[in-house]
Amino acid sequence: MITMLSDFGSKDSYVAVMKGAIAQIAPGIPTCDLTHEVPPQNILAARFNLLMAYPYFPKGTVHLAVVDPGVGSDRRASALQSPSGFFVGPDNGLFSGVGDREPLLAAVSLTNPDYWRVPTPSVTFHGRDIFAPIAAHLANGVPIATLGDHIEPSSLVKPNLPPFATSHPKKDNAKLAHYAGCFQYIDGFGNLITNIPARVVADGSWQLIICASHQSAESQERRKFAGVKTYGDVPMGEMAALVGSHGWVELACNGDSAAIALKDIATLGTEIKIICTQII
Amino acid sequence: MITMLSDFGSKDSYVAVMKGAIAQIAPGIPTCDLTHEVPPQNILAARFNLLMAYPYFPKGTVHLAVVDPGVGSDRRASALQSPSGFFVGPDNGLFSGVGDREPLLAAVSLTNPDYWRVPTPSVTFHGRDIFAPIAAHLANGVPIATLGDHIEPSSLVKPNLPPFATSHPKKDNAKLAHYAGCFQYIDGFGNLITNIPARVVADGSWQLIICASHQSAESQERRKFAGVKTYGDVPMGEMAALVGSHGWVELACNGDSAAIALKDIATLGTEIKIICTQII
Amino acid sequence: MITMLSDFGSKDSYVAVMKGAIAQIAPGIPTCDLTHEVPPQNILAARFNLLMAYPYFPKGTVHLAVVDPGVGSDRRASALQSPSGFFVGPDNGLFSGVGDREPLLAAVSLTNPDYWRVPTPSVTFHGRDIFAPIAAHLANGVPIATLGDHIEPSSLVKPNLPPFATSHPKKDNAKLAHYAGCFQYIDGFGNLITNIPARVVADGSWQLIICASHQSAESQERRKFAGVKTYGDVPMGEMAALVGSHGWVELACNGDSAAIALKDIATLGTEIKIICTQII
Repeated sequence: MITMLSDFGSKDSYVAVMKGAIAQIAPGIPTCDLTHEVPPQNILAARFNLLMAYPYFPKGTVHLAVVDPGVGSDRRASALQSPSGFFVGPDNGLFSGVGDREPLLAAVSLTNPDYWRVPTPSVTFHGRDIFAPIAAHLANGVPIATLGDHIEPSSLVKPNLPPFATSHPKKDNAKLAHYAGCFQYIDGFGNLITNIPARVVADGSWQLIICASHQSAESQERRKFAGVKTYGDVPMGEMAALVGSHGWVELACNGDSAAIALKDIATLGTEIKIICTQII
Repeated sequence: MITMLSDFGSKDSYVAVMKGAIAQIAPGIPTCDLTHEVPPQNILAARFNLLMAYPYFPKGTVHLAVVDPGVGSDRRASALQSPSGFFVGPDNGLFSGVGDREPLLAAVSLTNPDYWRVPTPSVTFHGRDIFAPIAAHLANGVPIATLGDHIEPSSLVKPNLPPFATSHPKKDNAKLAHYAGCFQYIDGFGNLITNIPARVVADGSWQLIICASHQSAESQERRKFAGVKTYGDVPMGEMAALVGSHGWVELACNGDSAAIALKDIATLGTEIKIICTQII
Repeated sequence: MITMLSDFGSKDSYVAVMKGAIAQIAPGIPTCDLTHEVPPQNILAARFNLLMAYPYFPKGTVHLAVVDPGVGSDRRASALQSPSGFFVGPDNGLFSGVGDREPLLAAVSLTNPDYWRVPTPSVTFHGRDIFAPIAAHLANGVPIATLGDHIEPSSLVKPNLPPFATSHPKKDNAKLAHYAGCFQYIDGFGNLITNIPARVVADGSWQLIICASHQSAESQERRKFAGVKTYGDVPMGEMAALVGSHGWVELACNGDSAAIALKDIATLGTEIKIICTQII
């Protein structure tokens, strides 16, 4: 099985062109769209959607992702292998989250033209001429090492996403933990999804705070959201901080869009804090 | 084969996550999207799209529909069986039209965790953790009765849609029939689709009238549309009342959007009348 | 394999209805969406998307295209065969580009109701009742000649698209070639795609000029774009005239939408000139 992710949209037949290129090489292999509505050239959004979906596919699935602002430049074309499957696309940070979750068994630069669609690929559409054919060959069982030169995993491009930070301030007789992060994705429901993983709020009570430069006591108050278990724990139209099904802490609005409700103070990249409290 | 319907949109990979969950359980089974653009939490729109499409699929097809405003509450998760196939989703009225068309052979509440993806499903994404796995197991041939407790069909949730009403007023030497209903769906072409089935206008001449509170003789006149056979029976840009391919009476605009043209007097839920006349 | 192209959009389950109709006749045959976001009734846009994608599919693929403003009128329903595959849809110019590229081996009018879904098709949805079933039968191996009456290829409807014109003015000691054409499609990235094929700019230097009625020397200057090889040859935000991956000359904007940047002077149908120069 081959999954497909891109920023090509659904207006044109560019995605279908890649599916045709796959079908010419691997006729019986089904494809599954992750999404093709990634905002143009937004590597972080593509990375998020891939990380959210890939663990739910069968082992050995080939994940083809083409969000490629550097097409035609000298950025590397890459294929990776992990215990759960294969990843094919530009080496621009798209796959960086995979290595955080599981070991990389192999990484190659797609330098062997024998596995491209044509010896001289289009300078603007490597999806059709390099990535889709490579995905098809991997699905056919071609060994990854034959596709090109070995890449040292540590040299893979990192995404432009600050990791979250942890601190443990002492205060009275409470055991506190502070986490500093940001909103890394806004989904189609308007949920503001942080880069704080579920495990940090697994026990105890916690709250999410949207950081801002002008922090009057009053505005600060309006930016604090107590952590709950599910949307239904707050009234319709109210904000809920909770662990989303994707495994990250998110800020949602019961029955509505949190992104619209909070558009004046929160957007992609806005810094947030999580404060977890365990009374001792 | 498994069809899929939701209000998840195409911006994120939530639909793909369900497809992955299906592929892990039923690897060879193809899926087919009905639509994932149902307006958020709009059970009536989901119900309409399902009713429009499901009769055209092969017998035994599993129809998975996840428009689930009550996820995480105590609403029942359900699977139904009819002669044409299976239906899996929340018990919130989504499938109520099926029972109007054909007998229900079985109905169960999805209480058996052996067929869920994990023993403790996400409280916000039953599509991934309960419904998609159940659909996959049904496609694999698992008997519906093993999935949970029997549901009495009469206890299935009814949709919030008034049925149409019929009356037979006498007038002069004409045989009249009046039907009172409403617009139950507006499709992507802007067709205003009523809840009046095709059979009531099968013979004789008829007209569709948009009801309104302020009924001056003049405005009434502008709200009457004579029934025709096809779009081409009226000039471009003109309104046509006709039987749509979905089997309901609709109000369309030849080459344009009726919903936009009539936006001041007609929308989802607007009451309408059909008057059928057979001269004796 | 069957590809599908339409202007049905993704809001409703009309496309799925056609997929169901296919699955009832040809259960094992996979389908692949080209796009269903063709602007309503825009035959030229449909034609462009089909031409862009079909060459990348395996030989024998059936291409089903339903953009059908004339449904219910007496326009012909057609199926064509070429060395690369089959084409099924209304005879309204949709497939005219195919015959420009490769020989037509057969063309029939779909007059044999044995291969329709029902003997009396809906007057508004031939996609479901005629075209999808015919595509399924072709994918099953039914010979095209049995589907209806022979069509003389020269009688197939031509699209409303002026062909590009060529002239070779003499000027000083340069070998010039002028090509007059227009923008035939605007893709989802905002690229303005002309009807001038790649081969005319294969060697030498060239420029693209947007024609306009009021041609002051100054405005003329702002409408000239030197031909380059790839987006990266111009700075971010600058316009690039180049050969797109689809094989036509296009006007693009590095990292942005050319259609928006040039919305005052360029749109679908706007006339353009290409001037190629080879210094002797």
